[in-house]
Amino acid sequence: MAPNFEGKKVKVGVLGATGTVGQRFIVLLSEHPFFVLHALGASQRSAGKAYSKVVAWKQVRAIPHVVRDMVIQECKPEHFSECSVVFSGLDADVAGNIEAAFREAELAVFSNAKNFRRDPHVPLIVPLVNTSHYSIIQQQQQLHSPPLKKGFIVTNANCSTTGFVVPLAALEKAFGPIESCMITTMQAISGAGYPGIPSLDILDNVVPYISGEEEKMEWETLKILGGISTEDDGKKSFDMHSKQPLRISASCNRVPVLEGHTECVSVRFAKRPPPSPQQVREAFQAYTSDAYAMGCPSAPRHTVYVHEEPDRPQPRLDRDFQLGAGVCVGRVRECRVLDIKFVVMANNVAIGAATSSIINAEFALLKGYVA
Amino acid sequence: MAPNFEGKKVKVGVLGATGTVGQRFIVLLSEHPFFVLHALGASQRSAGKAYSKVVAWKQVRAIPHVVRDMVIQECKPEHFSECSVVFSGLDADVAGNIEAAFREAELAVFSNAKNFRRDPHVPLIVPLVNTSHYSIIQQQQQLHSPPLKKGFIVTNANCSTTGFVVPLAALEKAFGPIESCMITTMQAISGAGYPGIPSLDILDNVVPYISGEEEKMEWETLKILGGISTEDDGKKSFDMHSKQPLRISASCNRVPVLEGHTECVSVRFAKRPPPSPQQVREAFQAYTSDAYAMGCPSAPRHTVYVHEEPDRPQPRLDRDFQLGAGVCVGRVRECRVLDIKFVVMANNVAIGAATSSIINAEFALLKGYVA
Amino acid sequence: MAPNFEGKKVKVGVLGATGTVGQRFIVLLSEHPFFVLHALGASQRSAGKAYSKVVAWKQVRAIPHVVRDMVIQECKPEHFSECSVVFSGLDADVAGNIEAAFREAELAVFSNAKNFRRDPHVPLIVPLVNTSHYSIIQQQQQLHSPPLKKGFIVTNANCSTTGFVVPLAALEKAFGPIESCMITTMQAISGAGYPGIPSLDILDNVVPYISGEEEKMEWETLKILGGISTEDDGKKSFDMHSKQPLRISASCNRVPVLEGHTECVSVRFAKRPPPSPQQVREAFQAYTSDAYAMGCPSAPRHTVYVHEEPDRPQPRLDRDFQLGAGVCVGRVRECRVLDIKFVVMANNVAIGAATSSIINAEFALLKGYVA
Amino acid sequence: MAPNFEGKKVKVGVLGATGTVGQRFIVLLSEHPFFVLHALGASQRSAGKAYSKVVAWKQVRAIPHVVRDMVIQECKPEHFSECSVVFSGLDADVAGNIEAAFREAELAVFSNAKNFRRDPHVPLIVPLVNTSHYSIIQQQQQLHSPPLKKGFIVTNANCSTTGFVVPLAALEKAFGPIESCMITTMQAISGAGYPGIPSLDILDNVVPYISGEEEKMEWETLKILGGISTEDDGKKSFDMHSKQPLRISASCNRVPVLEGHTECVSVRFAKRPPPSPQQVREAFQAYTSDAYAMGCPSAPRHTVYVHEEPDRPQPRLDRDFQLGAGVCVGRVRECRVLDIKFVVMANNVAIGAATSSIINAEFALLKGYVA
Repeated sequence: MAPNFEGKKVKVGVLGATGTVGQRFIVLLSEHPFFVLHALGASQRSAGKAYSKVVAWKQVRAIPHVVRDMVIQECKPEHFSECSVVFSGLDADVAGNIEAAFREAELAVFSNAKNFRRDPHVPLIVPLVNTSHYSIIQQQQQLHSPPLKKGFIVTNANCSTTGFVVPLAALEKAFGPIESCMITTMQAISGAGYPGIPSLDILDNVVPYISGEEEKMEWETLKILGGISTEDDGKKSFDMHSKQPLRISASCNRVPVLEGHTECVSVRFAKRPPPSPQQVREAFQAYTSDAYAMGCPSAPRHTVYVHEEPDRPQPRLDRDFQLGAGVCVGRVRECRVLDIKFVVMANNVAIGAATSSIINAEFALLKGYVA
Repeated sequence: MAPNFEGKKVKVGVLGATGTVGQRFIVLLSEHPFFVLHALGASQRSAGKAYSKVVAWKQVRAIPHVVRDMVIQECKPEHFSECSVVFSGLDADVAGNIEAAFREAELAVFSNAKNFRRDPHVPLIVPLVNTSHYSIIQQQQQLHSPPLKKGFIVTNANCSTTGFVVPLAALEKAFGPIESCMITTMQAISGAGYPGIPSLDILDNVVPYISGEEEKMEWETLKILGGISTEDDGKKSFDMHSKQPLRISASCNRVPVLEGHTECVSVRFAKRPPPSPQQVREAFQAYTSDAYAMGCPSAPRHTVYVHEEPDRPQPRLDRDFQLGAGVCVGRVRECRVLDIKFVVMANNVAIGAATSSIINAEFALLKGYVA
Repeated sequence: MAPNFEGKKVKVGVLGATGTVGQRFIVLLSEHPFFVLHALGASQRSAGKAYSKVVAWKQVRAIPHVVRDMVIQECKPEHFSECSVVFSGLDADVAGNIEAAFREAELAVFSNAKNFRRDPHVPLIVPLVNTSHYSIIQQQQQLHSPPLKKGFIVTNANCSTTGFVVPLAALEKAFGPIESCMITTMQAISGAGYPGIPSLDILDNVVPYISGEEEKMEWETLKILGGISTEDDGKKSFDMHSKQPLRISASCNRVPVLEGHTECVSVRFAKRPPPSPQQVREAFQAYTSDAYAMGCPSAPRHTVYVHEEPDRPQPRLDRDFQLGAGVCVGRVRECRVLDIKFVVMANNVAIGAATSSIINAEFALLKGYVA
Repeated sequence: MAPNFEGKKVKVGVLGATGTVGQRFIVLLSEHPFFVLHALGASQRSAGKAYSKVVAWKQVRAIPHVVRDMVIQECKPEHFSECSVVFSGLDADVAGNIEAAFREAELAVFSNAKNFRRDPHVPLIVPLVNTSHYSIIQQQQQLHSPPLKKGFIVTNANCSTTGFVVPLAALEKAFGPIESCMITTMQAISGAGYPGIPSLDILDNVVPYISGEEEKMEWETLKILGGISTEDDGKKSFDMHSKQPLRISASCNRVPVLEGHTECVSVRFAKRPPPSPQQVREAFQAYTSDAYAMGCPSAPRHTVYVHEEPDRPQPRLDRDFQLGAGVCVGRVRECRVLDIKFVVMANNVAIGAATSSIINAEFALLKGYVA
């Protein structure tokens, strides 16, 4: 049975609080049932000033009152020592050192940055998929010298990977290994942060390239969908889906959409004959996350929502369903080249970013990984 | 050697002259080196009125002076009897009967409508690819009772098929049959005509569905890339690429772009080992069309232009290159699932529509299919 | 003191329930504290079918469960006889006759259609401005033969008028009559309904014309801001602001924005010297509506919200503030030609349409105009 | 009679050649009948490298061949000593010193930067309006110590001023002084350069503020439309329209449009009664520029093109008319507050920027101001 958090409050901090992802963390945490915003970190330039005086607020919602006058701190562990959980929305150019320092200071860091995603001891967790990867944390702590007791880093995936890997996980759970997968993305501009994409580049246009994105999708998916293998000496490692090689080919595009990545996916199963479109639809509907089962308050009831209309999901109409915490699929049909194709739409600024980190932290707390 | 058309003028008519495709025909024909606009056909409602009084002109260029005061005719052959060539931009709901009547009246019809594309005696010609299919025309005429002498119908392909089939043709020419092909399109709103897509449906959005489009792409490509087989009795038929079955899987999306369809394509060759990305780039660059070789004035010098920049082609920047008569590709690279993947961008209102019909007619004239 | 509606439920109907405005009515009413959706009316073609089977739902929110299986009725009074209030989102081409028939059947009609706005006995009520105009209803009923007891029609204003007239009302309340007013609008595409503006007309474009809109703004504003004069025989009539003539000049433009009309306004006061920008800001902040004071649950707390940032209000960021029920202003500054200029932004599909009707009905109920 | 430039070539240089405005200069100059691109200047970082290797080319047209391999110079006069004309597309933060140094080196500088626009000895010339202001150049040269013989600086106006001031000039020419003028702009994103406006700020949005723009429009218009007065000692100065004070009130907005500023203008004439809308239309049509009369090849035949359609001009459809060198107006009608109102649309990257500088230089050359 899930622990009861009624009435309990867990202090949390946000690193990179003035950035795009940081603002999303703040919006979500300001209304959270048990996380309480306690400390905000940003660059030295902003430190010492009231949050509302410094931030270039770009959210549709107004700045939450709770942070309006909160004084920004430098991103140093001593300012966050009372926080049980620290969320990082830092840019990749500074996230590495700062997150490592916070871990060393025995803080639990849930990061949206890419720096530690490829670390062999850091789990890359999409909370609707692979919470089992928390089992690597103990090793991450013990490898440290001296071994850590509470500090660790957990990352979530790149926004385009996240939407894609959830339905794949549902399919592997129902039908066994996927053998190959083609994906073409149509990604929202908010995925590039702020200021991000110049308007002159994207209005009335498609940019068929996002630097590093295809490699991220191909690599991260293997880490997330793979298991953790344990050697004779007890050492654990990510198996990168190696027991059944999974070939992934991604083509990434930027389109003039504010929020919501739309992705056309086609898969081939190892299982022959492959499942029918109807069986695939049912597998999607049946799929639920451990995070939801555990009672994580930010986990969506419908992990994969299946649209029956022929022209859905669409980012503008569907990105706010379940506050963007789930994944929408539609157009499940046969593929003449692989087996089955479908469309996925996931909110890149919700489950594709801050929401994932928050569910990850909720899960860690409920499971006892966080004190 | 190509016939010399210096100083000669060929009278042409346009059916559906007030529609979106008709307007494009008029813009292109008003500046043509030897086609001369002679008759304009539209619905009974517009007939008898001056073109500029009736048309809801939606082109960036002003209405050409030559048609401004031209009186619109009903779409009946008798009004077009002096035309050597008739272009049809008619809507599918009326194109079938009208085009058949024009053919029966011994007129040469070059149609952008879909009605006759699947007719077993009507060639579906993308002028940068399969002008050899003109050879079926004689059979089309002879099947008529009594046999026709000059009348025939030639169609061009759907706009999304056109951009896709040109690079495929280049690859098959260089490396032999393609075995399978995956394609995801991001199609411009102009592909749906006017009024077409409501702005509320597409602003800040992607619609992952275009009715009938995926089927068209899969079917038309086989007809275009296939050959014509001749039976013992001399009867010709389209072989639909049946000697080497070609599996095609298309996923079609509408994006908020005015003109220019962008398509992510991945192919697997029958040839093992497959060509390298560099060999593919060279094959694209080496590919030229018979239409250009024959001297068709609207055929592009670069049939397939290869971009070296990592983020091109882009519809806004590249759709007007060569007046939109060629096809742009870029990002040629290995595919982890099939063999090679790349991006294609073709101007759906130019080579994807009116420009194709015009080059088809130029070719027919230069080859002597049109008197 | 406001009546207590705790626990009471008022049955309401919606005419034109499948249209754009009808859908907005349904979204808002499905969560209303005391209105309960009881009957839905649409065209004969839809009548007899379940709502979700017929509607082309275009809202970001999913279809509310309460109406999903509700059977659509024809727009005839007998199907709405149990409704205390009927909201009309009908198109203008049918609204006139249907609304008149409903009134005649003793139903209270709150209409978003334009048909009765210029009727000399029908109040044109922007609920944040002129609820005092309800006083004309009795005359509207008595003019009927035989006189009506419960039936009447109340209209709300055109969406572009609504945003504009609220700050004007605030200024007239604080500083006396406005003498002249210039306004240039930048209106969202949703103001034109669905399918409305073709995407080819508005993507990467501004259309500097909206048919009839400038006349509506100039005329409706006079009716709304004017008073009701009573002649010796007791006959009431709208004075159209005639005691102090108000000259209004509107220029209306359509821009590629989904929701939220932005308007640049400049005013000249009769009062000399005119108020300063700071006095104007304070007048905006101090302005409250009778509807809010009365306790109408849909009336916004901030009738006119004043932005201090130099670049606000903006439609995308501010249209959902207070669920779009208030009006946002900003950039209050001196005008070198008239006296004061500022920017207004109002949500055209909320306070500019359905929300106005609903607050009007709430007010009528609380005031006892509705049984 | 205009000088004959047939066969003559005038060497020109471009400062800021890699920037947005510089790229436009290059596109236009690469096809110019007598200007020949001879030297390109950019920052020290780019100097010494081939143009095509350094520039982030953002034009729809490909990089002209003539500059592709041209080696970029630092912006020092010695590298431009062979140029008869130097165009400056420099950013304001460096334009001041560099342009002054070029003038001192006896080079004729035609600048699009704002730095010298308010200089009392530098003419601010919109070539369709006030070429008479060239008369101040001699004074500019003589004030220098030692006096200059050939060097001078001429600026053109801000892009939003340019479109607005041309129809005003036409009206003043026909009907005498304008007394007051209200203008609301809807400006394209390209007016902000590159990277300019972040897409997250403008997609599905209007930003009702452009820093400094309203002040520029109000001030520059007075300088351009005003005359040059000569004191007893022969000293000349700009009179800023002071003989008949002109009150201007501007409201500037950014909209999601790529190119073309649309502006709603309302004017009050000193002349009573004011001209009718029809007289205003005729005055617009009758207005021609000295630059066109002189034979400047880039000057448009229609200085002010008058649209009769109710919904024009529109930026997307009209910005390329006459290569964007003229100004389009429409919707000329009475204003209930001032006298006459109308819509202007001008291409901000053509006549609003580089094209103005080029016509200015053509005129200076034809008039003998440039050797």
